Order: sequence, then structure tokens, then C-alpha cells
Amino acid sequence: MSKTVTGNFFEDFRVGQALRHATPRTLTSGDVALYTALYGSRFAVQSADVFARSVGYPRAPVDDLLVFHIVFGKSVPDISLNAVANLGYAQCRFLKPVYAGDTLYAVSTVVGLRENSNGKTGVVYVHTRGFNQDDVEVLSFVRWVMVRKRDEASPAPDPVVPELAEVVNVTELGSACPAISLTNWNDAFSGSPHRFTDYKVGERINHMDGMTVEEAEHQLATRLYQNTAKVHFNQHTEGAGRFGRRLIYGGHVISLARALSFNGLANAFHIAAINAGRHVAPLFAGGTVYAWSEILAESWLPGRDDVGALRIRTRATCNLACRDFPQADGSPDQPGVILDLDYWALMPV
Amino acid sequence: MSKTVTGNFFEDFRVGQALRHATPRTLTSGDVALYTALYGSRFAVQSADVFARSVGYPRAPVDDLLVFHIVFGKSVPDISLNAVANLGYAQCRFLKPVYAGDTLYAVSTVVGLRENSNGKTGVVYVHTRGFNQDDVEVLSFVRWVMVRKRDEASPAPDPVVPELAEVVNVTELGSACPAISLTNWNDAFSGSPHRFTDYKVGERINHMDGMTVEEAEHQLATRLYQNTAKVHFNQHTEGAGRFGRRLIYGGHVISLARALSFNGLANAFHIAAINAGRHVAPLFAGGTVYAWSEILAESWLPGRDDVGALRIRTRATCNLACRDFPQADGSPDQPGVILDLDYWALMPV
Amino acid sequence: MSKTVTGNFFEDFRVGQALRHATPRTLTSGDVALYTALYGSRFAVQSADVFARSVGYPRAPVDDLLVFHIVFGKSVPDISLNAVANLGYAQCRFLKPVYAGDTLYAVSTVVGLRENSNGKTGVVYVHTRGFNQDDVEVLSFVRWVMVRKRDEASPAPDPVVPELAEVVNVTELGSACPAISLTNWNDAFSGSPHRFTDYKVGERINHMDGMTVEEAEHQLATRLYQNTAKVHFNQHTEGAGRFGRRLIYGGHVISLARALSFNGLANAFHIAAINAGRHVAPLFAGGTVYAWSEILAESWLPGRDDVGALRIRTRATCNLACRDFPQADGSPDQPGVILDLDYWALMPV
Repeated sequence: MSKTVTGNFFEDFRVGQALRHATPRTLTSGDVALYTALYGSRFAVQSADVFARSVGYPRAPVDDLLVFHIVFGKSVPDISLNAVANLGYAQCRFLKPVYAGDTLYAVSTVVGLRENSNGKTGVVYVHTRGFNQDDVEVLSFVRWVMVRKRDEASPAPDPVVPELAEVVNVTELGSACPAISLTNWNDAFSGSPHRFTDYKVGERINHMDGMTVEEAEHQLATRLYQNTAKVHFNQHTEGAGRFGRRLIYGGHVISLARALSFNGLANAFHIAAINAGRHVAPLFAGGTVYAWSEILAESWLPGRDDVGALRIRTRATCNLACRDFPQADGSPDQPGVILDLDYWALMPV
Repeated sequence: MSKTVTGNFFEDFRVGQALRHATPRTLTSGDVALYTALYGSRFAVQSADVFARSVGYPRAPVDDLLVFHIVFGKSVPDISLNAVANLGYAQCRFLKPVYAGDTLYAVSTVVGLRENSNGKTGVVYVHTRGFNQDDVEVLSFVRWVMVRKRDEASPAPDPVVPELAEVVNVTELGSACPAISLTNWNDAFSGSPHRFTDYKVGERINHMDGMTVEEAEHQLATRLYQNTAKVHFNQHTEGAGRFGRRLIYGGHVISLARALSFNGLANAFHIAAINAGRHVAPLFAGGTVYAWSEILAESWLPGRDDVGALRIRTRATCNLACRDFPQADGSPDQPGVILDLDYWALMPV
Repeated sequence: MSKTVTGNFFEDFRVGQALRHATPRTLTSGDVALYTALYGSRFAVQSADVFARSVGYPRAPVDDLLVFHIVFGKSVPDISLNAVANLGYAQCRFLKPVYAGDTLYAVSTVVGLRENSNGKTGVVYVHTRGFNQDDVEVLSFVRWVMVRKRDEASPAPDPVVPELAEVVNVTELGSACPAISLTNWNDAFSGSPHRFTDYKVGERINHMDGMTVEEAEHQLATRLYQNTAKVHFNQHTEGAGRFGRRLIYGGHVISLARALSFNGLANAFHIAAINAGRHVAPLFAGGTVYAWSEILAESWLPGRDDVGALRIRTRATCNLACRDFPQADGSPDQPGVILDLDYWALMPV
């Protein structure tokens, strides 16, 4: 039996199959510092124990997206080592805050399979969940990836496509957010006077700044997440491949867009859920990432008057400033747009 | 009201105006590790809890310049987002040691304004102070920056230029330095037998080594400091700008010079004050930084016989080895010189 | 007396000479996070406190190679600042686990000297030992380096070449490994069902993945280790030198190979000893590192039935995939091979 893991191919998956992923991980203040150095994120709750404590957390929680990347990374060797493309995310919910010192592990269940008509690949839908050291679920999401078949002659499975919510219901938001003290929320510290009720549906925000990505940066990030997808790391093979270069982990773009969004959404301190995410185009080192956001909806959380939820659609672009809000008209394929992310963020009222 | 911060322009500042900066930050051992990875600094007090404890600290303090960069970074969105140039520093004093776990915040007061004769820009002088979680002041400095006017037609304010000390008085040094046990100071561990009294005024030290800077490195550093100045990060715009490339944060050069200065000043364990600092020329990725120092003065600290203060002038250069002490004759503009820093460092006697 | 350290030359060493190295270092979770970001290592014992605790450690130990690099780095200013080449390692034993919070220091003894026939250089053999804050030895190894003479005319010393064991005896393994609970060892978490007895002598494992190295990455790593060897950092001088570029620290290659070896050796959780190591060829930024391993021997540890020791020979290559096991025939100089490492790793039974 081979000692080496070559990853699952499309035929290896069965609907209902459970996969327990390797390498539990203790998140530390070291991981948090690296995350800051990689993206420059400035949200006060995640940056300062004192601020976090003053508003209701026991101390600064780990950035939601760092938690996402860690859990996602664990699933890669079992789910997407032979993936052609990461197609989408849905129903991603952040369920409990994660703190430095917590140890995370991840499990996935196959919830859908559909062979593509070319007979060479198929789409695998997995429900991935992250747990902490107390076996408390901290994160849950569905993603679907296009995976190669090992043998094109193998028969197609009965197609199963899971029904996925287009939007996470507001009743499912907020469990990772303690009661927030509005009295103690200091806008000077948080970086903006604009609270929940100051945002209007349809409002568009250009996040202004651009961030150029270097090879060393995305590699450091992706290794920090123990994500082993080959396309991010191997110039020797990728140089001879489709793009001629290493592909940047899509999650790196999400984190860049989120960090850039501080300028305009400084009080959107917590990502409660990701409704949908699509990597519209690949990003390569040397590209400069910009972002803009649109407020799609806003909602109070049932039984809470401390925070409200903004449904935000953020587009990230490459080498394209966002003052004209590219793709605002909903056109599907404007060059330069690389990410289309739809999420719920919480803001103090 | 726009949600996006575009930064203050020259007309937005008033003498006496107070600015409370965003994003308090808890410094951690993660930040310290990154600082080591970025500069390779080897001062024993900051590297080892055991050494620090043996000489009089409760544990290893955070590198003085990391504290400086964190406080400085906070001031950028309010002070220098529209800056053309960072002109100088003065009266920078390190007032209390900072330890991993401390949370820092920063406030600034405008202490001077002077429009330039071209009517397009003006110089803003700010006094910036950093505080810890107990509201104890840990750092204080004045810097002045050239800032664009929003509207060239707006009238010039009455010029106010603060009187700044050329040198921080020795009576103001040492509050961030506990009583140092000379008995326990181990020169083998600290890396040099040369103590305070071994240095002579006028002595010149070539710090020998050169360090080449990569884009990823200075971006990681500057994001770690949550410094958002656009010129450091955006190749898309900077590529079309004055230099055709990203400008490296001047503080990165200061930290490189300080780390290089270990070779020759290994026992200069604490920067007590920065008298003056000037970024003589910009640094770009790919450049190799060297440094040399001259002892300008030496002084006992009032009432102390454990440590003395050396006033050190350190020049950093780019692609220019320092064996001939470039610009030692005081000539103002030798090519290759990029930094001229005048500071007080403490050394055990 | 010059304040600047220029390093020892061949004539400066005497057999029996003891060198106490500078800058003790407290290892932190920040260093551990950086190590993960630099190599992407996924061994469960080092990644998760919870896993480590479940199998018998008090918490996650620091990666063995991070300990090695830290101790090695301390010896550089005294031993190899004027080295032409790092020739080899032997008798490297990991004696005690190191945890975040421990402070390490290092001492070396010169155990051999032999001038080369060209009269320009000589080989220096040193026995380097690392200790923790309780003066407990955590690491011991011999290395030998080719060092320049200051003056070619100086007389050659009597040659002394230490007798070095080809293989560390199995009785000397295991002191850094607590009793491991096989009941609690979870193969799903550790990433492989293959335990000690599943590996056969002569078995070859292609570790599959390739990792491209960037300048910023190896510089960050080498500075993290406070290793000051000039050849790794100074493009200004190296650009005009033998290779025209910066040389990557050999230890960086060892860590990359070890991280890659997870795919095939996931349960080889602890490096107990390095029998021999040779940097067959230099690595430069832009190269993609691959690795493969051969099981040279296997042995039970005296008095223990929880873990066994695999003697593993790992070759790392540059821009050469390892599916054909390059240099498996023992040919000494196949192009593309850059590292030949012979070590003992422990695995649960």
C-alpha cells in the first residue's frame, strides 16, 4: 500500500461519505500576528484585547477568515488535491468565537456529486465543519469543487445536487457574537463613526486602497493555513501549466478584500456568515487587489438590539481601481474582477 | 456622508487639534517573532526572557522600534495619508518598557503648521504619543510631514513652527530602563565585551554587514504595523508614479540599521530617545542596506551608575558599503546615503 | 580594539577551545507560527496542543528542526562567519523536548582542525550544544566547515580529525520523546494509518509535492534563526560573487524536505537524531524543492514498545521531481540533487 497520499478523485467520493481531516491545529498569537502582517487588517475587536474586552468579548477573538482558512486548509488533502477549480461556497456560518490557544480540527461530509458531461471531471459538494478542543462547532460551510476522474471510463454516479440556501437566514447569525456593549464601543478606536443604521441598502463603497501581492506573501499565507494545494507552491510544474505561474489561493483574495474593506466598513467587526463566494478569475503575484462593496440588505438580529447585520456584496479586482464600481450592473464577466463575495457582517447599532 | 476615509489635507489641520487614532493593538510574542524575522535583531535583552530577567527586567521587553512603528502606524490614517514626504522626527522618547500582552493606542496633537511657498503643500508638525492599557505613556515624539492641500486656493494659516530640542536632554532618558544589574550582565550572551566606557566620542564603527530588502519583506513589516500609507503597497499606482515603484516605509530602514548596528554596538540594548531622523533618500526593494555609526556624545544618567547613554549618529546606505564612512565629513547629499539618525542608546557601564 | 566582530579565521581556532555563543533566545508561539508559514509542516504533535497532550507530551513541542536552526544560528558568528562551505553534520541528537517559552543558548567546543593542502583554508570541527533555561542540554551535534585563513603564511596546526560515528546508536535515541500513548494516537488526525511496523527497509517514498522558494522566504527564515552568515542576505556583494546571487541557508532545505516528507511519513513525528547531512549543491531562490526518502534501517528502542526508530535517508532536489528516485543508485553527483540527509525518526508502533 502506497504511503503517499495522492488525493481523492471524483470516483472516490460517495454521497454521505464522512472524511475526518488530518492535523488538528492550535491557533496562537503567532498565527494572529502573521495574519496581520499578511493583510494589514485593522478591525479593533480582533486587534486589541482591551477593546474586545470593553465591548463584551473575554479577549480579542481570532479573525473569522483566519478560522475559515485553517478549517478549509485541513479539507484540501482529502477534498481538493485533484481539483481543477474551486467553484463556490454557500451556507458558511461562524458559530463560536475562536481564541488564541484554541485547537481546531475539521470533518467533511459529501453532500452532492455530479459528473460533468465531458466525462473527465465531476463536481463534488462537501459540507465541512470545524470544531474546537471541546468539540464545539465553530464553523460550518458547503463548498463545491470540480475534481478530476482517475479513470474517464468509470461510470457516472447518480447525480445528487444539494439544495443550498441563497442567503443564510438572519436567525442563524450571531451565535459567535457576545452581547456587545454599545456604551463602551469607542468609534475613535474602531476607526469610524458609522454604525449599523448609517448604512442604506444599495449604498456603494469604494474601499480605495490597492494592495500588490508578492509570491512570498501568498505562499506564507497558504502554508500558514497548512493548505497543500500544489498549484499555489510549485513554479516548476505550474510554469509549464495552464497559466505559466502559481495560482494564488482564493482565500488570500478574500482576506485582502476584507482587510481593504476596513476603509468604509470599519465597524463591521464580525463576519457572521458567507452567503456565496465565487472566484471570478485567478489572481497571480504582481497583481494589485482593490475592492468595493454594496449593501444588499440589512437586518436586525432576532432578540438583539446591540448589533445589526449588513448583507454586503464585495467585489475584488486586480489592477482595476474601484471608483467606478466595476460590475455594479451585474454583468457577469468584466475583466479585472476576481472575486464576488456575498456575506453578512455584524455592526454595532 | 462618505463612509471612506480619504485622510486629512493640509487645510484640515489646526494648531492645538487633538486626533485620537484608531485601532488599539495588543502586542504579542507573535509580533516580536515577526520583528526578529524581518530584521534579524540580536540584542539579548529583547531576545531572551532569561537574560532580561537576570539584568533587571521582569521579562524581555518589546524592541523599542517595534513600539515606535506601531504607534507611528496608528497616526498615518489621520496625519500622513496625503503626505508627500515624511520630513523628520524630533524629541522621540521611550518612556516605559512595553511587554508582549500590552495594548497600545495613540493620540496626536497638531503643534505646528506652515504652508509652503508653492501654495500646493504645507508642513504639519504633530506630537504623537503612545499609551498602554493602563493609560501610561510609553512613547512620545514629534514628526513633521509635507501634506497636500485639498484646494490650492484655500488661504494659508498663520505659520506656527514649534521649537524643537536638537537633542533630548539626558535628564529625560532612562525612564523605560529598570535598574540594570552589572553583576549579571553576561558579555558572552550579549555578544560583546565593550561597555559604555569603552566608547569614545568621535569613534566610528562600520557595522559591516549588508541586508537586501525584498518587496514582500517591507510589505509584511508595514502591514504588521498597520501602517496604511499607500505608497508602500500599490504597485499599480506607484508604477505610474514618481519613482515607478513602491517606496519602502522609512521606519523599515531605521530597524534594519539598528539590527545591523548590533555588530559594533551589541551592548547598546535600549534606545532611550531619538534626537533627529531624516530619510535622506528613498529605499526601494532590491537595494542592500548597510550602516555605520559615530559616537557623538556620551553621558552618565543623573543618579544612575548602572548604565550610560551614548549619543549615536547612524547613517544607513543603499548599495554602498560603509568601510569609508560615507558622508562622515558632513556633506549633505552623498549618493547612496538613505538615513541619518541621531539617537541616545543606553549601555551597561 | 575594534568594536566590530569580523569572525574567527582558521588560525583563531584551537582544539579544545570553548566558545560561548551570544544572544540567548526565548522561543515563542510566534516563532512556531512563522516556522509553519515558512514550511507548511503538518505533523500533528507539533501542530496541536490537544493532540500532543493526548499522546503524552505536556503540550505541543517546538519542531525539532526549529530548535536545530536556532542553536546552529547562534554558532555562526563564532564559527562560520568566514566559512567557505558548510561541509557536514554528524552525531546530532535531540535530547529534550523544547516548548514555547523555553530560552535556549549554545556553546561549542573545537574538536578538530585540519588545514587544506592549498594553504588557504582549513576544516574546523566543532561540537555544538544547545541548552535551555535550566541548563539542560536539548541538542548536541558536530559539524565541520571549511574556513578561510586570515594569513596564508601562518603555519598549519597539527591535524586533528575527530572520530565520528556514522550512525547515532539507537541507545542514544528517545530521550526527547515521552512515553507515547498508542491508544490515543489518532491516525485520522496524524494524517496516515502507516505506523512503524508498516515500513520496510529498502522502501522508497516519493514525497510528491514541490515547493518553490522565494528570496523573502529564506531571508525571513534565516533571520528568524538569528543566523548572520552574509551569503544569505547581501545581493550587493553576492551578485558580484561566485554564484551571482544569494545562497540559501542549507537548513532551509532540510526543513523544506522534512515538511514535504509528511506526505509518506506523516507518523514520523519526531527527529531523534541526524546521522549525517550533506549539502550536495547550493539552492537559489526560484528553485523548486522536491524530496524522496529511503528507509535505511529500523530499530526498536531499548526498553520501549511505544515507538520505533526508522533510519531514513532523504534526498532533496531542485527542479527535479522525485518519481524516479534520483541518485537512488548511490551515484554521488546527479545534477539536481541538493541535499543528502540521514536521520532517525520515531514513529508510533
